[in-house]
Amino acid sequence: MKTRIISGLIMAPLLVVLYFRGIPLALATFIVGAIGIYELFEGFKKLDIKPNIFIAEGMLILLYFIHFLVPGRLDYIMAWIVLSIVASGVSIFTVEKHKIEDALATLIGIVYVGFLSYHMAMIDETSYGILVWMVAIVAFGTDIAAYFTGYFLGKHKLCPNLSPKKTIEGAIGGVLGALILGIIFGLIFKIKIFPHIILMSIIGSVLSQLGDLTASAFKRKMGIKDYGNLIPGHGGILDRFDSVLFAAPAIYYYIQLAIAK
Amino acid sequence: MKTRIISGLIMAPLLVVLYFRGIPLALATFIVGAIGIYELFEGFKKLDIKPNIFIAEGMLILLYFIHFLVPGRLDYIMAWIVLSIVASGVSIFTVEKHKIEDALATLIGIVYVGFLSYHMAMIDETSYGILVWMVAIVAFGTDIAAYFTGYFLGKHKLCPNLSPKKTIEGAIGGVLGALILGIIFGLIFKIKIFPHIILMSIIGSVLSQLGDLTASAFKRKMGIKDYGNLIPGHGGILDRFDSVLFAAPAIYYYIQLAIAK
Repeated sequence: MKTRIISGLIMAPLLVVLYFRGIPLALATFIVGAIGIYELFEGFKKLDIKPNIFIAEGMLILLYFIHFLVPGRLDYIMAWIVLSIVASGVSIFTVEKHKIEDALATLIGIVYVGFLSYHMAMIDETSYGILVWMVAIVAFGTDIAAYFTGYFLGKHKLCPNLSPKKTIEGAIGGVLGALILGIIFGLIFKIKIFPHIILMSIIGSVLSQLGDLTASAFKRKMGIKDYGNLIPGHGGILDRFDSVLFAAPAIYYYIQLAIAK
Repeated sequence: MKTRIISGLIMAPLLVVLYFRGIPLALATFIVGAIGIYELFEGFKKLDIKPNIFIAEGMLILLYFIHFLVPGRLDYIMAWIVLSIVASGVSIFTVEKHKIEDALATLIGIVYVGFLSYHMAMIDETSYGILVWMVAIVAFGTDIAAYFTGYFLGKHKLCPNLSPKKTIEGAIGGVLGALILGIIFGLIFKIKIFPHIILMSIIGSVLSQLGDLTASAFKRKMGIKDYGNLIPGHGGILDRFDSVLFAAPAIYYYIQLAIAK
């Protein structure tokens, strides 16, 4: 439990980034994406899969060029996704040196880590940019509430083969924790989209937990416990941000599809 | 050469679909996507990779629901891409039964086949819908011109390890063939975006050839000659449409980024 609290505190610099938003936030998500791709690809190496890190990091840099040069243009971002598919395909043209899995893993690095984390910066570009806070509140609130609920009340295993310590009670506690924190956030910042705050908290919390479990499934198949050791004793960037990868798009598309229009 | 000509003729029904566009075109791209995903997944099985066809076909159906219910909304399509990533991740939660490659292959089926082919329907939604013809002209024009140029003039191998019969002369002939056909198309239909027609033909032809080579790389790694046998003696849907998968997005994003705005 001590490590869990310490690793929570280590996230404190994140608060500064969320406060300033704009360029600091975009740079922070870029750094998370760049290190995350590296960590994921190190994991793939354990399976003898060798994705192309130059293509993946190059595509990530291109994404942030698009972000700063033509902000808010979804057609450019979609063109970037297609270009990522093309580049991943071309990366195995030297067929004798590469497996098909190398191309698949290259693309996963780009879209799963780079594109999903980029949604933090995309939220910031909407007229509800303050809701980047919701991602942090929901993702880390779920994580902490699920941990403590599971610790004190956990009885029924959620998915023992995938993540043996997780319980159904913990999962429910995680959603409730996110909901309570989301409501408090809405009250303090007087956000006038109140029924939406409740739905965003619940959907965001469920997606956070799916993000956590997806990362667990990947790590289990790679035969590793953590993605890295960037924060000594507390895993890598991807271990910290696995739930954000799914929670950030949940909040972004909620804003776009249910609130903004 | 005979089979090449016959398989060209088999594409004739495509002309009818391109003429009517609208719903017939969307249904045709849906069918190509649905069969293409099946063929690709059969290929993956040769590598002992087992993607989840229910998730992939389900996501494809959802894409066309979005197409008909909220046409032209790129934010919905991006949300759909994210949902495809989430669903592919969730598909291997039963870790003991699945490899990480199964999730990667599921996602590739959705985005490489389903999403890329969908760009035909997306072109149709723009104010330059008639340019769906450009995709067919460029993709099949490149294919035929490259074949004949290579047959008569081919001397220098393009990438012997990947596709032994292709030559540099054929590749150049393919671009020139697409360019000539593109210009004729522009003149006949009096399309008033003339410098764009030239650029679209060249870019589309290069992407067509990359699409063809990417499919070759995939098939070579799967140890298969063709993706299927739907058209007896002339391969599967994916063998016929491999270049369209890359050419359609090339034309779509050219319209969106260079012409429309």
